[in-house]
Amino acid sequence: MAGSTYGTIFKIMTWGESHGAGIGVVVDGCPAGIPLDREDIQRALDRRKPGQNRYTTQRSEGDLVCILSGVFEGKTTGTPIALEVRNEDQRSKDYSQIAECYRPGHADYSFDAKYGFRDYRGGGRSSGRETIGRVAAGAIAQKLLSMLGIQITAYVKEIGGISAKKIDLEEIERNPLRMPDAEAARMASQLLSERMAGKDSAGGVIECVVTGLPAGIGDPVFEKLDANLAKAMLSIGAVKGFEMGDGFAAAASSGSQNNDSFSVQNGRICKKTNHAGGTLGGISDGSDLVFRAAFKPTPSIASLQETVTRDQEPISLCIHGRHDPVIVPRAVVVVESMAALTIADALLSNMTSRVDRIVTFYESLK
Amino acid sequence: MAGSTYGTIFKIMTWGESHGAGIGVVVDGCPAGIPLDREDIQRALDRRKPGQNRYTTQRSEGDLVCILSGVFEGKTTGTPIALEVRNEDQRSKDYSQIAECYRPGHADYSFDAKYGFRDYRGGGRSSGRETIGRVAAGAIAQKLLSMLGIQITAYVKEIGGISAKKIDLEEIERNPLRMPDAEAARMASQLLSERMAGKDSAGGVIECVVTGLPAGIGDPVFEKLDANLAKAMLSIGAVKGFEMGDGFAAAASSGSQNNDSFSVQNGRICKKTNHAGGTLGGISDGSDLVFRAAFKPTPSIASLQETVTRDQEPISLCIHGRHDPVIVPRAVVVVESMAALTIADALLSNMTSRVDRIVTFYESLK
Amino acid sequence: MAGSTYGTIFKIMTWGESHGAGIGVVVDGCPAGIPLDREDIQRALDRRKPGQNRYTTQRSEGDLVCILSGVFEGKTTGTPIALEVRNEDQRSKDYSQIAECYRPGHADYSFDAKYGFRDYRGGGRSSGRETIGRVAAGAIAQKLLSMLGIQITAYVKEIGGISAKKIDLEEIERNPLRMPDAEAARMASQLLSERMAGKDSAGGVIECVVTGLPAGIGDPVFEKLDANLAKAMLSIGAVKGFEMGDGFAAAASSGSQNNDSFSVQNGRICKKTNHAGGTLGGISDGSDLVFRAAFKPTPSIASLQETVTRDQEPISLCIHGRHDPVIVPRAVVVVESMAALTIADALLSNMTSRVDRIVTFYESLK
Amino acid sequence: MAGSTYGTIFKIMTWGESHGAGIGVVVDGCPAGIPLDREDIQRALDRRKPGQNRYTTQRSEGDLVCILSGVFEGKTTGTPIALEVRNEDQRSKDYSQIAECYRPGHADYSFDAKYGFRDYRGGGRSSGRETIGRVAAGAIAQKLLSMLGIQITAYVKEIGGISAKKIDLEEIERNPLRMPDAEAARMASQLLSERMAGKDSAGGVIECVVTGLPAGIGDPVFEKLDANLAKAMLSIGAVKGFEMGDGFAAAASSGSQNNDSFSVQNGRICKKTNHAGGTLGGISDGSDLVFRAAFKPTPSIASLQETVTRDQEPISLCIHGRHDPVIVPRAVVVVESMAALTIADALLSNMTSRVDRIVTFYESLK
Repeated sequence: MAGSTYGTIFKIMTWGESHGAGIGVVVDGCPAGIPLDREDIQRALDRRKPGQNRYTTQRSEGDLVCILSGVFEGKTTGTPIALEVRNEDQRSKDYSQIAECYRPGHADYSFDAKYGFRDYRGGGRSSGRETIGRVAAGAIAQKLLSMLGIQITAYVKEIGGISAKKIDLEEIERNPLRMPDAEAARMASQLLSERMAGKDSAGGVIECVVTGLPAGIGDPVFEKLDANLAKAMLSIGAVKGFEMGDGFAAAASSGSQNNDSFSVQNGRICKKTNHAGGTLGGISDGSDLVFRAAFKPTPSIASLQETVTRDQEPISLCIHGRHDPVIVPRAVVVVESMAALTIADALLSNMTSRVDRIVTFYESLK
Repeated sequence: MAGSTYGTIFKIMTWGESHGAGIGVVVDGCPAGIPLDREDIQRALDRRKPGQNRYTTQRSEGDLVCILSGVFEGKTTGTPIALEVRNEDQRSKDYSQIAECYRPGHADYSFDAKYGFRDYRGGGRSSGRETIGRVAAGAIAQKLLSMLGIQITAYVKEIGGISAKKIDLEEIERNPLRMPDAEAARMASQLLSERMAGKDSAGGVIECVVTGLPAGIGDPVFEKLDANLAKAMLSIGAVKGFEMGDGFAAAASSGSQNNDSFSVQNGRICKKTNHAGGTLGGISDGSDLVFRAAFKPTPSIASLQETVTRDQEPISLCIHGRHDPVIVPRAVVVVESMAALTIADALLSNMTSRVDRIVTFYESLK
Repeated sequence: MAGSTYGTIFKIMTWGESHGAGIGVVVDGCPAGIPLDREDIQRALDRRKPGQNRYTTQRSEGDLVCILSGVFEGKTTGTPIALEVRNEDQRSKDYSQIAECYRPGHADYSFDAKYGFRDYRGGGRSSGRETIGRVAAGAIAQKLLSMLGIQITAYVKEIGGISAKKIDLEEIERNPLRMPDAEAARMASQLLSERMAGKDSAGGVIECVVTGLPAGIGDPVFEKLDANLAKAMLSIGAVKGFEMGDGFAAAASSGSQNNDSFSVQNGRICKKTNHAGGTLGGISDGSDLVFRAAFKPTPSIASLQETVTRDQEPISLCIHGRHDPVIVPRAVVVVESMAALTIADALLSNMTSRVDRIVTFYESLK
Repeated sequence: MAGSTYGTIFKIMTWGESHGAGIGVVVDGCPAGIPLDREDIQRALDRRKPGQNRYTTQRSEGDLVCILSGVFEGKTTGTPIALEVRNEDQRSKDYSQIAECYRPGHADYSFDAKYGFRDYRGGGRSSGRETIGRVAAGAIAQKLLSMLGIQITAYVKEIGGISAKKIDLEEIERNPLRMPDAEAARMASQLLSERMAGKDSAGGVIECVVTGLPAGIGDPVFEKLDANLAKAMLSIGAVKGFEMGDGFAAAASSGSQNNDSFSVQNGRICKKTNHAGGTLGGISDGSDLVFRAAFKPTPSIASLQETVTRDQEPISLCIHGRHDPVIVPRAVVVVESMAALTIADALLSNMTSRVDRIVTFYESLK
């Protein structure tokens, strides 16, 4: 299946392996006229770059992006935008061990089962570097959304069970864990130090908030906005769970408590509470979108693990190399990017929902 | 957007409103030669039918399905299969109130925002009756899967915070709540009685297990099997969360505990544990698939709620009519159906993953 | 493959066999608010109905359409519109012979090769009755287009080599062959009488003209408007060729003659000639779209033909039954319908081509 | 719309402009295990390269392709294959004139109408260089097809009205016009010399033959194999017509002459003639596929033409620069490539048409 393609109108195709020539993405269906230069994209990539601090892999990559097509005189042309990041630091020797054995928690075995063999260097296509294409394309989607007054902000809600108790957006980029609560970040740092000392790793939860989205975006049956956000999040390697609004807590609530009453404020209909997380029946309701993604702990750990080889021989494995003890801080921008791609596509789709608006649109061109 | 279409190869399009002429689905891309009669489909529909017991709406519907095309001499022909259920019990008067006001927790407002107006009779397209199309099509997908030795079983894991403590598959259909634990079902029944007395409602969690799925199904990037299952679940009305394997609990675990070691059993590579829930890197790993969907409490409650009308007038609303105090028991078959549709599509896609198998396939036809 | 699905935004799925319960279509993605009643659709179906005159099959079908969903208070709701025509006159005995042998020029053999068996009654899914779904859905697309001032008109340009020498639109519905030239129609009638007497059949060419389409519709690479029209036409059974504008004649022309000069008329840029047929680089140029489809002669003829059975036995075959000696007059509305579906989808897609228009669109909703 | 994406299972996305950084394509959904090196792709690109002889533009391009991903140890991995050709000879000054005026026969005006502006350097995205992506991807599709014994051969059937009278496949690559008839090639050469002297250009017809395709490929309704071939051909810039088998000539024939009788040869059912061109009801019938595409004359001519500027000013235009007086010889490989992409996709889709084959496929994996 063409599994590296995403989106219907704003469509992307990503490519590249951890230790191949590079990583890239083509964006097909981006509207013409969006001001875009490579710095717009580079800024996003820098947020997911390795080597930012002691909690991220020390692989040394500049991750410099080139725009190869689809932009002319500083604006998108409406034709495909090809973006490319060349790999620089490809120490294949670090990964030679995994050619023959199946690392627990990794996709080595399932890749072999599907394709018969795999590019084993550094995880190949299932490496975290695959997300470079998502982030690069997501930066373009964010440009489009910001022109419409829509803002996407994600942060680390929880690491290894330690939760942020408050949401201070100013704090997010002040600590290396991208938590919106300095005290929680301090405690999580301590936990991570212990995990690193114990050759172990941690997971966490990222929360994402989308403001400025008008009501009416998304579709009522299979293409519910929250359904597509769930797919977007679970498509990120290591994500094991998704919640919209109150999520699993809603399942334990009651109708009278979980229902959000409507009221009128400043001449607009709005909800008094937001247990729903901003969608009703799969369609945005004008409140903020609020959702969470649960990330499993980094599977690459330096402590001894039992596994088997391709030839079914039992083997003990110790994964050395450059791995993040926790992936969630760097994944924040990936979550924002997937959200941006999903919402941009839904917004463009939505323009055809009413015939009166279509008529007005075409009348205005005459 | 064409939001009522689902699947790539095994593709369905559903249609119909709560109080229109009926509900239906067309299945396009179903392989030829599957034995199929209407009883195969009716059995599945009977499991979601209203009026099964005191916890389900007393709307009286036979929900009898007709096969209108695509089956000849008892087998699917490979051409589109049209299935149709006519609505019988359409007491529109029960719903006249909602034409003008927005029910909390329902899609009334978001539909109006999107389409400018809506079929307000009984929720129209956003009614739970919409799932009839999913279940009818899912029954065909299940026929295909069962020919391949794949079995899908869902059950109610939790209602209103009361969880099943054990999983006894025999028990599921013995109690009206479809819980695999008789004692938990008894306690949940009591909770529901209290909620009904209090004009309130409950939510819950459905867990689904898929056995017999070979390793190698699903795709590594955007079309991860778990990503598509997440979308499938969140596309069901009222679902607010999804977990694969350990889900959110994995986020609080450590790498050493969460990683599933590989071993060899009976000449096959398998995992010793299944924290992952049966996928690695988005591709099935040969273990059982295990996932959960969180359902919010039924939003239609008979107690007084504050809301507004289309004209922005505040109004107090009391929803009478025939509504389930809890939706999860009837949703079990919907979860199974969406899982079946998703997995059937992934299996068919997977046939083209390796050129050696393609060559063998076409050689065998000569 | 899901081969009975058509369109990206305005998407349809058709179903049904010649001698099954009926024929139908579901339209998913139709904008909300289009005034629609069943007469809009019935009028189109009546134009393709059998039994209109001596040149069409005498099968007696009312071909009455029902709207089962997606329309409320006389307007489309934005949700799927299910349309259905029940088969009435199913004389299966007429067709029993073809269960075992392969009719020349029909899809019997290729269906068996693909699916292993087939619904052999009256051609099953490959019957001309399959086009009912296209025409019913096309009528809705035409409603949308007419609200935008776009008009689609097709007619029979040629039958059995006899061409219309003039295009008199008033004449089209005056003669049973739907030719825009009464004299050519008279000559073609004579030819058809001879063919019928000789137990033979004729083919022909349909030309289609689209007026009122703004410049800028269609896409530059694979989704060229003319490419999609070509697919639309060749997807109609019996079509063997397609021409845009001058078509094959352009291949024999020169650049200086074939290029259409631009000029300004009434303050608008337009082309002085229209060799191109209304598209440049796959995008509409503001001129009329002009294209043609070539239909092969009806393959069902009453004269003796040599063929083989499923068991590879040679056999002589004489096809009796109710068949049109020429199919093109009834196919005129099918050509219009496929054009309407294709253009409607392209128009809706086009709304997202420029970011300034997207911003204006969403600003207007605030 | 995402108009630079093609295919359902074997899916490609192309990018790049005439005078940007380069041209490329990503292939998503290619099966794993196909032996592939850059020479396989370079050979195909060399056949479309400029500067091959006096009838092709003298633009000097090496058109050297790089494989950036998706190939490991000499075989495709099943993950996206990114291919890239950097532009070298970008004499932008040749094209400065067209920034403001609309060249007749080109997409300048329609691009502006759609996107509001365009990359005017050398045609930008609508340049013939766009086909590099098609040819590069097509070379991979051809590798797959050749492993299944399927061969695609195209040649120039006609230039400026001069037709090949015989089909000598050996002759095709012997003459610069790629005609399968040396005498016709000589006459066409003379015609082209005259056109060049007269600052004019010519069009032509390419015929394509596909051998070795099994019966049963393609789908019966909208996804007819011939419908997709028609779209594939019309998606090539400058193509204005398509014929399958006898094409337009069939429209003038009779049923008794046009029907292809079935017979048995060497224990296989086959057709005695092939008026149909290898498909019946949209599905391959085991005969060779035979189809044609009509190309308009090169619109860039050095003689004076009347046109207008963006500001609606009349202007006389003389297009200097490096342009092919005829495009068809270089387009032969483009036709083959689009055919290969279309057929590969249809073959992969076809693997899921019958449940017995699906069961056998999955049984063989156990």
